[in-house]
Amino acid sequence: MSSTHHWFKAKLREMPLDDCLEVLGNNQVGRIAFNDPSGPVVLPVNYSVTNGAILIATATGSSLHSYVPGSLVAFEVDDVDEFNEDGASVLVRGRAAIVPTEGFSDDERPYTWPEGPREVLLHIVPTQITGRRLFPA
Amino acid sequence: MSSTHHWFKAKLREMPLDDCLEVLGNNQVGRIAFNDPSGPVVLPVNYSVTNGAILIATATGSSLHSYVPGSLVAFEVDDVDEFNEDGASVLVRGRAAIVPTEGFSDDERPYTWPEGPREVLLHIVPTQITGRRLFPA
Repeated sequence: MSSTHHWFKAKLREMPLDDCLEVLGNNQVGRIAFNDPSGPVVLPVNYSVTNGAILIATATGSSLHSYVPGSLVAFEVDDVDEFNEDGASVLVRGRAAIVPTEGFSDDERPYTWPEGPREVLLHIVPTQITGRRLFPA
Repeated sequence: MSSTHHWFKAKLREMPLDDCLEVLGNNQVGRIAFNDPSGPVVLPVNYSVTNGAILIATATGSSLHSYVPGSLVAFEVDDVDEFNEDGASVLVRGRAAIVPTEGFSDDERPYTWPEGPREVLLHIVPTQITGRRLFPA
């Protein structure tokens, strides 16, 4: 592997909030981390950003539906470039709640890739948004 | 957005272990989820897979160094195709421990993209590996 490695390594820097919001706004898939009775779990999900909150739609009885409402969660979105070995990542922390689907328009709710109903709408109000960018050397 | 949406949605299926190991073996970046005193956190990291365990190198005093050793963690790797709206994801769960760097060769240890020392080597022995694939309709 070492022959493919870059000569100069990337610099990791904190990212301003505006850049974090841009990364959040430009992606369709993030990863939500939460705890079930056996410890931490992290799963990819489709999401939307509406009025500064993260919206995630899930199915009744899913692990997200069972363990996320009322809990502290973390939500991560990134742009990773394996060729250039750089990228940006955003971490949102906050508490999740179930909100009524009817409170949001079709455009505000997340568009979900998998088939099947996703009738439970989870709403994460960020208490903290941080990000890091890996700059090419 | 709705005009860009696919007519037929993808089917989500459990993925066999061999496919999970292939996704783990073919990527350089995953996301580790753990708890700090304020709740769940999820961060992107470089990793390697050695003898069935996940290896992650971190800096002394990082949040990973502070909160991960001895704890239950989750580790996620995915291949996401935003154009086709499909992909695969793998979830590894297990307990993390610090292991001596000298116990592993350069090729076994993860190659890290950011500059700076990553002298703490974290080792996650999977207690569970599961995956899901989103098949195009």
